[in-house]
Amino acid sequence: MVIVGLGCAGAAATLEASRAGAEVLVLERAGGGGGTSAVSGGLIYCGGGTPVQEKCGFADSPEEMFKYLMASCGPGPDEGKIRLYCERSVEHFLWLVEQGVPFKESFYPNGGSEPPTDDGLVYSGTENAYPFNEVARPAPRGHCPQAEGAAGGLLMQRLLGAVERTEATLRIGARCSTLVIDSEGRIVGVVALADRAEWYLRARRGVILASGGFIYNKEMVAHYAPLLQKCSYRVGTEGDDGSGIQMGIGVGAAAIRMDAGDISLPYYPPHQLMKGILVNRYGQRFINEDAYYGRVGEHALLRQEGQVYLIVDDEIFARPKGAMELAAVGETPAELETELGLPEGALQSTLAFYNDHAARGQDPLFHKSRESLSPLLHAPLGAFDCRVENALYAAFTLGGLHTDTAGRVLTPAGEVVPGLYAAGRTTSGLSAQGYSSGLSLADASFFGRQAGKSAALD
Amino acid sequence: MVIVGLGCAGAAATLEASRAGAEVLVLERAGGGGGTSAVSGGLIYCGGGTPVQEKCGFADSPEEMFKYLMASCGPGPDEGKIRLYCERSVEHFLWLVEQGVPFKESFYPNGGSEPPTDDGLVYSGTENAYPFNEVARPAPRGHCPQAEGAAGGLLMQRLLGAVERTEATLRIGARCSTLVIDSEGRIVGVVALADRAEWYLRARRGVILASGGFIYNKEMVAHYAPLLQKCSYRVGTEGDDGSGIQMGIGVGAAAIRMDAGDISLPYYPPHQLMKGILVNRYGQRFINEDAYYGRVGEHALLRQEGQVYLIVDDEIFARPKGAMELAAVGETPAELETELGLPEGALQSTLAFYNDHAARGQDPLFHKSRESLSPLLHAPLGAFDCRVENALYAAFTLGGLHTDTAGRVLTPAGEVVPGLYAAGRTTSGLSAQGYSSGLSLADASFFGRQAGKSAALD
Repeated sequence: MVIVGLGCAGAAATLEASRAGAEVLVLERAGGGGGTSAVSGGLIYCGGGTPVQEKCGFADSPEEMFKYLMASCGPGPDEGKIRLYCERSVEHFLWLVEQGVPFKESFYPNGGSEPPTDDGLVYSGTENAYPFNEVARPAPRGHCPQAEGAAGGLLMQRLLGAVERTEATLRIGARCSTLVIDSEGRIVGVVALADRAEWYLRARRGVILASGGFIYNKEMVAHYAPLLQKCSYRVGTEGDDGSGIQMGIGVGAAAIRMDAGDISLPYYPPHQLMKGILVNRYGQRFINEDAYYGRVGEHALLRQEGQVYLIVDDEIFARPKGAMELAAVGETPAELETELGLPEGALQSTLAFYNDHAARGQDPLFHKSRESLSPLLHAPLGAFDCRVENALYAAFTLGGLHTDTAGRVLTPAGEVVPGLYAAGRTTSGLSAQGYSSGLSLADASFFGRQAGKSAALD
Repeated sequence: MVIVGLGCAGAAATLEASRAGAEVLVLERAGGGGGTSAVSGGLIYCGGGTPVQEKCGFADSPEEMFKYLMASCGPGPDEGKIRLYCERSVEHFLWLVEQGVPFKESFYPNGGSEPPTDDGLVYSGTENAYPFNEVARPAPRGHCPQAEGAAGGLLMQRLLGAVERTEATLRIGARCSTLVIDSEGRIVGVVALADRAEWYLRARRGVILASGGFIYNKEMVAHYAPLLQKCSYRVGTEGDDGSGIQMGIGVGAAAIRMDAGDISLPYYPPHQLMKGILVNRYGQRFINEDAYYGRVGEHALLRQEGQVYLIVDDEIFARPKGAMELAAVGETPAELETELGLPEGALQSTLAFYNDHAARGQDPLFHKSRESLSPLLHAPLGAFDCRVENALYAAFTLGGLHTDTAGRVLTPAGEVVPGLYAAGRTTSGLSAQGYSSGLSLADASFFGRQAGKSAALD
């Protein structure tokens, strides 16, 4: 078989296909394997009761994990993929360990993305905040390979090490742009450019597309997900140019949820900033500020047109790590409101309502947790500029080829494209829209394995 | 050439292709032409200074029309299509008249959708309300054929009459599901089912797909535009099952903005209800209530999760034509808030702020026009239930095949699929998301003509 791309999805597919005895040729356009996975934070969303969760004292079950993902990965989450992944997540975690990926059995308490320490477990979504803490029993599920800070490099080092121990052939500097389809409609090979020549490569057991998303393809982003164009930071590498998705579309595959993206607005850490309030252009709050910043970024961009501010007082003041600038400072809510150019009375009304309830430990609108609730009373008040044109919004695409749980690529009518498989960000995966950190590497690693197994039986 | 579908787009394509001397075969799956266009309101969005606009005393220009459409048809509107259509809109209107479509040169003052009278002109978008009244000089552009109420029947009667006068061959009861592509990648025909037999039809000058959208295909809606599933009313006919889009995808075409839809929440007429306020589940207002109800429906569903209420007082009380039920009644804001189960103090705070400013003729948050501003003070207060699970939300799909301004179908890489054309709701057209009534028939009629002309030269 031919596997296009050697990021996490391609590596996982290679490992399983090789284990099943398939002859594998991996084509990687870059000078080496790794892809976007290698420059990522390395978090992998696993749960249902992994050894790390248990050692850290968190009870979890496939059912609680399923409830959280179904509630948070929509609208329109892929129930089949989520159910299968929740059932197999512990096994999948053990498989990662078996490939040599180390995880420290320790919990890092400040959630969000990968920890700056080498801790192995972190809250990487909105499991323990409203509304999902009322939907499912919260448990942290962001599993981080044991490296300080970004751990994608370590993850891919170990997976690529495992790939090297297989019989698979790796061809770097090989760029694929076209699939070869036979007269029955079966995918039987690829056209690859390598060594300044065009190669026609026959794939006896199908082709697996594992070549990333399309955040680096400006035209595709403009046509499919125009709001993501506004985000200043593209999470990915140049390989995320949609080539795998385009190859699939070229043979009649469905590309679904192409509007979807992960959109992070890192207004914390430091976590004390969760005590601030986020307001829109009307001076209204719109979300609990202790939600995962990927959820907040999504709401800010998709629902508030990226026109939001973080309001703080002197007591909680700190610079967000995401490097927002102060848009305005005021001695009173009225002054801050005027400075920001917000409608007269709007922010004053919001702050009065918020402070009144926060003083009693309540947030009747958005149910922020008690520890992040304190009235914003200490002058001066400040507003960090979280508007999309000025702040860092980090985005990558979540839409892609429609696949079944076995990694087989589907047409719009739901039929299988014979001989074609895909995994990772080339596909629409566990998250149809709402995101938690670690879901992309979960998609890549787990459904990469599924695709490898399926193609080996092709 | 072969034209698939005889709604407005197919008729317009047939007329222009025939005029250019092409031999045309039209395949229509239903028992007669008309399609969804024939059961629509019949509004066609035209402007830039049509005879009807001028006779009714409205100044308009292609440039003002362009500014409005670019601001309202996004995110990510197709600038090329909008520019061309604005430049040609007057000519296009005259063409419609030339085909026998009558328009009365009179203005109906209560905007929204097609007038209940036989008047020819109406505000059919948010041209004369915030924010677009600050972007472009307002002018009504909804042109309605001269029939009382829904005029799509009359429109299609006249267009089909014109089609009958051409040499084109019409084959009804013919269902297409597959395009035929030659070894060079050119579309050379279709496979059609008719008379219980499969026909392989060669198209010497290409194929035009004009077979509607996909709101009647539940699986496609679930995979591409899951929020539209929540809308109780599907605007369309059974032919809107996505077959044209699927045929395009099957030969490698890009289908873009497949998440997009028009979503109407008809909380008026009567127009006095615009004096009410719409609030979300947090008791917050979120839009100026005098906006086009298609814009309001879109914001309500996409940004407020379809969880909204219309708050009225006794003075403006009336039953919305859209048949919403009263969710609650209260003698005071506090009582109404409790009855609705809104967070304590939230609606009270919103009403106090709104009433205070409305009494002075102001709406600092959403800039509702002065004539729709009056404090809601007369007990009892009522809340109409505009939640998506209880109210009528009317939806159809706006996403579809990616075409250029000549109606040629494109691949994800922006290359033309040789021999393949499309128009109408089979394509993503003038509106990438934000809608005004009449844009779909504008797409169908104008870009149908473009496709017909292009294919005739193929």
